[in-house]
Amino acid sequence: MARNLVFILALTSLCIGLAAADWNILNKKLKNGAASRLKNYCESWRINVELNNIKEFEVVPQECVDYIKHYMTSSQYRADSERAIEEVRLYLSSCCTLEGDGKDAWIFDVDDTLLSTIPYFKKHGFGGEKLNATLLESWMEQSKAPALAHTLKLFHEIRDKGVKIFLISSRIETLRSATVDNLINVGYHGWSSLILRGLEDDFMKVQQYKSEARKRLTKEGYRIWGIIGDQWSSVEGLPAAKRTFKLPNSIYYLS
Amino acid sequence: MARNLVFILALTSLCIGLAAADWNILNKKLKNGAASRLKNYCESWRINVELNNIKEFEVVPQECVDYIKHYMTSSQYRADSERAIEEVRLYLSSCCTLEGDGKDAWIFDVDDTLLSTIPYFKKHGFGGEKLNATLLESWMEQSKAPALAHTLKLFHEIRDKGVKIFLISSRIETLRSATVDNLINVGYHGWSSLILRGLEDDFMKVQQYKSEARKRLTKEGYRIWGIIGDQWSSVEGLPAAKRTFKLPNSIYYLS
Repeated sequence: MARNLVFILALTSLCIGLAAADWNILNKKLKNGAASRLKNYCESWRINVELNNIKEFEVVPQECVDYIKHYMTSSQYRADSERAIEEVRLYLSSCCTLEGDGKDAWIFDVDDTLLSTIPYFKKHGFGGEKLNATLLESWMEQSKAPALAHTLKLFHEIRDKGVKIFLISSRIETLRSATVDNLINVGYHGWSSLILRGLEDDFMKVQQYKSEARKRLTKEGYRIWGIIGDQWSSVEGLPAAKRTFKLPNSIYYLS
Repeated sequence: MARNLVFILALTSLCIGLAAADWNILNKKLKNGAASRLKNYCESWRINVELNNIKEFEVVPQECVDYIKHYMTSSQYRADSERAIEEVRLYLSSCCTLEGDGKDAWIFDVDDTLLSTIPYFKKHGFGGEKLNATLLESWMEQSKAPALAHTLKLFHEIRDKGVKIFLISSRIETLRSATVDNLINVGYHGWSSLILRGLEDDFMKVQQYKSEARKRLTKEGYRIWGIIGDQWSSVEGLPAAKRTFKLPNSIYYLS
């Protein structure tokens, strides 16, 4: 009888344990209902930023900050960026009859294309706070931005083909030496020119400033085979490159 | 004793039931590992199509057909499209000083913008089979494509503002009457012109054909306030509209 009782008690606790596990799962599912609606909403926000349907946002919607943070630090973000770089490689394998006259050119954006600003945004609200240029620029002064590993590899592949590399960034001119240090520290070298925003470019929107820079290059006879950037303002506008590639970035918008 | 035995048996079966449920969960988790890597890959493929980094694909990668089918029939696809339409609404609320001279214009693409081809692709491999124009066109002849509900609503909102609506589609001219019937059957009416591909347009790529159609409109004095389409070839090229909106579509690519 006593042994039976022990057996019943043991079975009962096991059952309670398993039932509790199932209850947790059920509870999780209920919570997941609301979470899944929020995920739906934030995913729609993000995809419409990438489609360039949502423009000129100043902050990530508060309720989506965690979602965007999760995405921008996820293996999905890395896979998405890597796939973009793979497509550049595919394009380069067949696109271009390089003339070897030193006039074949490729353009890279700097932030979130060659260098990642994610460490900064991790400490500053991950897009949920209005961009503080002063704080961001003092972070840039420290030259501590890591490279985007897959872009770094591609950079050297393009350079090794004999294509001249131009870096057109909306960073201001006073950040030149910090930017050069940062780029070299993480493995970039051998670019032809780093174009930064001078005082005279300050009245222009980013897209216009970058278009003007391309205009100068084409006037000098360069054939721009491609541009890679994380902002639509880096790749749109005239003169156009033969192909453009947009990396994902839903933390901030530069127009 | 017999009652104890019944109790033990009942508890045991309950436990086996719960344990089986847990085993299923564990098993599911293991399978989820591989499934999650595939999801990662297919999601990257899809986002790079939407970013226009992957161009001119003829078929959805075989391993991603189920994923794309799932997305294109999901609440996420609807939410993503609805958000795009919401952004059009937001733009329209402040963008345009309509002059009321009958020259304010808006352009809609037809397939997967006004009408959905998803019922067709459900029966024809969901992008995993090379597009069969003959089969697709005989389906279009039946005028059975459903409306995209949110675009239908927006269509009438734009029309009610006094903006002239132009439908520029890559459907061929012989589908005119079937297309008109289909559009009217599902609730569209009051457009100013439905532009379809004539024989003379056949040698052009879609983007060029659509750009030429816009060129004619601007020559006639129309101000094109916006374009909505599900293909980059509907919204890119010159002359440009003041704003363009891209709906998601990763089943096929028209260049």
